Amino acid sequence: MENKIENISLPLKGEHLIMALKVADDLEDTERIKSLILEAIRLSEATILNYCEHKFEPQGYSIVVLIGESHASIHTYPEDKGVFIDYFTCGKIKTNIFKEYILKNLNVTQVIELATIQRGETND
Amino acid sequence: MENKIENISLPLKGEHLIMALKVADDLEDTERIKSLILEAIRLSEATILNYCEHKFEPQGYSIVVLIGESHASIHTYPEDKGVFIDYFTCGKIKTNIFKEYILKNLNVTQVIELATIQRGETND
Repeated sequence: MENKIENISLPLKGEHLIMALKVADDLEDTERIKSLILEAIRLSEATILNYCEHKFEPQGYSIVVLIGESHASIHTYPEDKGVFIDYFTCGKIKTNIFKEYILKNLNVTQVIELATIQRGETND
Repeated sequence: MENKIENISLPLKGEHLIMALKVADDLEDTERIKSLILEAIRLSEATILNYCEHKFEPQGYSIVVLIGESHASIHTYPEDKGVFIDYFTCGKIKTNIFKEYILKNLNVTQVIELATIQRGETND
């Protein structure tokens, strides 16, 4: 793919949201999980370029989404009612909107991990 | 895709290698970057399922690789001679071999970030 997404010169820096959640949702509903992450990305005003997904046997689902500003992912573990979510962006993306949408739309029973890591050159 | 990759029940935990590097390599050679990450993943004995990539205009390249044990990614910034690399695994993957292969095969001029984050349930 050769879309005309501008890659403006920036310092090598980014923001990386990491989440590990236990949820009461039906994680076998992979279409819902896919819609959830794609909508969260859209609402945060990032540019979705492409994604790959995989359904595991007997259960589990992964999707990684390539965005113009880096990537996002969800990995689900239905047997543990657990999900890992990453949202790594290098641009001026509304990461907080992504996070709030995810937390609002999953029935979270336990927040195991919820952190934002400043990536790369952070000393300015 | 519905490959028969076993998704064994595990605690919700993982290991996430993050790197930000300045390099002297030709980052416009996207085929080399792709080969680099795919070979590093193979050597670490993870299972490559699929990947998506994107070449930006006027420059820059991203690849995210879905693996049986989570995902890996490289984002390049040729204008800054910089790369962001992630390797997130939930299984018994030889992350160190991945890291060493990357560091050996890129002409690194500056390590801006090189860390391993324990993800999820880490208290056992």
